[in-house]
Amino acid sequence: MKFIDGGVTAPIGFKANGIHCGIRKNKTKKDLALIVSETLADTAAVYTTNLVKGAPLIVTKDNISDGKAQAIICNSGNANTCNPGGEQHATEMCALVEEYTGIKKENVVVASTGVIGQPLDITPIKDGMKKLVDGLDCNNGAYAAEAIMTTDTVQKEVAVTFTLGGKTCTIGGIAKGSGMINPNMATLLVFVTTDANIDGALLKEIVSEDVKTGFNMVCVDGDTSTNDMYVVMANGMANNPKITQKDSDYEVLCQALSLVSTKLCKMIASDGEGATKLLECNLSGASNVENARKAAKSVISSSLLKAAMFGADANWGRVLCALGYSGADISTDSATVSFVSEKGEILVCENGRGVEFSEEKAKEILLTKEIVIKVKLKDGTASAVAWGCDLTYDYVKINGDYRS
Amino acid sequence: MKFIDGGVTAPIGFKANGIHCGIRKNKTKKDLALIVSETLADTAAVYTTNLVKGAPLIVTKDNISDGKAQAIICNSGNANTCNPGGEQHATEMCALVEEYTGIKKENVVVASTGVIGQPLDITPIKDGMKKLVDGLDCNNGAYAAEAIMTTDTVQKEVAVTFTLGGKTCTIGGIAKGSGMINPNMATLLVFVTTDANIDGALLKEIVSEDVKTGFNMVCVDGDTSTNDMYVVMANGMANNPKITQKDSDYEVLCQALSLVSTKLCKMIASDGEGATKLLECNLSGASNVENARKAAKSVISSSLLKAAMFGADANWGRVLCALGYSGADISTDSATVSFVSEKGEILVCENGRGVEFSEEKAKEILLTKEIVIKVKLKDGTASAVAWGCDLTYDYVKINGDYRS
Repeated sequence: MKFIDGGVTAPIGFKANGIHCGIRKNKTKKDLALIVSETLADTAAVYTTNLVKGAPLIVTKDNISDGKAQAIICNSGNANTCNPGGEQHATEMCALVEEYTGIKKENVVVASTGVIGQPLDITPIKDGMKKLVDGLDCNNGAYAAEAIMTTDTVQKEVAVTFTLGGKTCTIGGIAKGSGMINPNMATLLVFVTTDANIDGALLKEIVSEDVKTGFNMVCVDGDTSTNDMYVVMANGMANNPKITQKDSDYEVLCQALSLVSTKLCKMIASDGEGATKLLECNLSGASNVENARKAAKSVISSSLLKAAMFGADANWGRVLCALGYSGADISTDSATVSFVSEKGEILVCENGRGVEFSEEKAKEILLTKEIVIKVKLKDGTASAVAWGCDLTYDYVKINGDYRS
Repeated sequence: MKFIDGGVTAPIGFKANGIHCGIRKNKTKKDLALIVSETLADTAAVYTTNLVKGAPLIVTKDNISDGKAQAIICNSGNANTCNPGGEQHATEMCALVEEYTGIKKENVVVASTGVIGQPLDITPIKDGMKKLVDGLDCNNGAYAAEAIMTTDTVQKEVAVTFTLGGKTCTIGGIAKGSGMINPNMATLLVFVTTDANIDGALLKEIVSEDVKTGFNMVCVDGDTSTNDMYVVMANGMANNPKITQKDSDYEVLCQALSLVSTKLCKMIASDGEGATKLLECNLSGASNVENARKAAKSVISSSLLKAAMFGADANWGRVLCALGYSGADISTDSATVSFVSEKGEILVCENGRGVEFSEEKAKEILLTKEIVIKVKLKDGTASAVAWGCDLTYDYVKINGDYRS
């Protein structure tokens, strides 16, 4: 199992493209993406739990209720949510895919990201379709990754190869993250493709499990978007013996997907709006996995801790505090906390009480780009990992005037 | 019922003082406060729900388990939490009050606020006690208000007079807020005194009710402190006929306390760390009060909305979004949103959909210091009010290096 270059077009039988069609005013920013599979693919998805749901989600849910899809169309620059005619426009986007590719509109996943509440002008999408479809290519996955970005500063593409039944299989994924990223929900746009051959029901199960240790454990700002979804398409073109039960091949596929989603999680967290550091909370010793997840997420979600990490301040009291209000059933009295980075590890709290430590060494460790907050409890053997980022001046700047 | 000058020493029979004793290095910052009542007072309190509880809370809970107290001692600069010997030091602070005032140590409320995890040096407190007690005066309530401040930029004092059974009664309060302020908990230091005569059990009930519409509806950053408490002492020295049932006098006292706590809430929110604006979410039309509170708190807690308000950006989509992930059982489809300030009111969303509005007018309204986010639902008749503040560069600055 190893990482390779590329994203959604790394697996066999997937093409993609991304263009600027004119939804965004800035002509240098791509705003329309298309991903297609040569054949109809088993498709599973999870969606935001926000009560306010973007129009595209409603249309997508309906389209893939049979577990099948062949294309994903996604625009950035407008969320197509809480606006007049949202569902009609989302349906129209699917119809445009059919018109230009021949893929049935009922097999299209549609997604949008951007500002809420603005009418979506369908004209630039219509006008851009020919160019978008003409450019579909197995080398253009990166264009799709670029076209779904909002305030993201880097494209997020990952691909992994592995072997199933003697056949080389590949999983590729792209994601859009940045702001409005909060645990407990499917809160981003993540499009994953694979050529692995797997039963549709099992695929659904893998995705539902994967989101719990992956995208639900990322937090940028505690806000949950109305529009986000995580979609996995499996077209089976690697020709591995079809996975129909939870055997060793199933396990390998789970691991490969987890590798892709975990990597995307880290990319999303470290590119959180205004972020300068990736934070990882690595928590062990909880009584069960729910408590472990709740506690780890609470730590990386604390505004106070996030600001302290920005300032490279080893204020571990904020870790204890966040554990304490996490809602998890844990014994904070036995919590041990240390900060870890490429510069080393420093113990700052043992059994819920501060220990003496070198502020100088702590500073050195915290002045790096990737910091692990290691928490050990003594309640049991369950563990969890959560990812977040520091809270910086730039988060405020970006969100103080997002619409202009 | 009217506001008057002063705070905890406005009611009859209360004296207070605040000094710099040396817990803080900065000699211009007071760090030790004492409030005493001439007579033993009925006392009710609510505490943080954080699992990590400061040592002073444990000692205070024990001391006022009989519903009686006569003094409050509070230091700033050190939270006396998650440190060695915390409870012993808290108990010692109570004993020092007994030694210098004669008030029994079992009748002392002890509180601390500041950094977590540092050993508390009791020496400066010991050395400062004589000066602290010598300066106790019914005109020195403001010194106590000053001494409990941490990153607060303004002192928070309120007093209200009203009449019960022909007697003039007074309630006075001081609070410390700023960061680590989150709803659903008693999350601040609030000390309230009154000379009203009321049965202890009823006082407890009033305080428990008051916190639900008051301090639980304030959010600065979503972090819940380990140390905070809201204490009300009633010494009965106004000589009103003792309130022993839920009659009209009881109602008047509830209203007066609510006036004090609501005012303190607004002061806390508008002085939130780095804040430049007070935000109030005024939500009506919910099916019940729990849903109303949950939804209103979610709106004023959204980092994205807080940043937008800082930038005077009428990004109402973030209001809808926060309503949607609040966990409240509401119909966002019928939500109407407007922004209100001294500059007027502007409707931005009707029935969950954006309406056309003048961006210029919106900017004018949002460029003020106090903004009301008015949300109307159509689920029922319940309403709630929550208070928060904008998210600014300075919040990041203050918390990026709090300990130095």
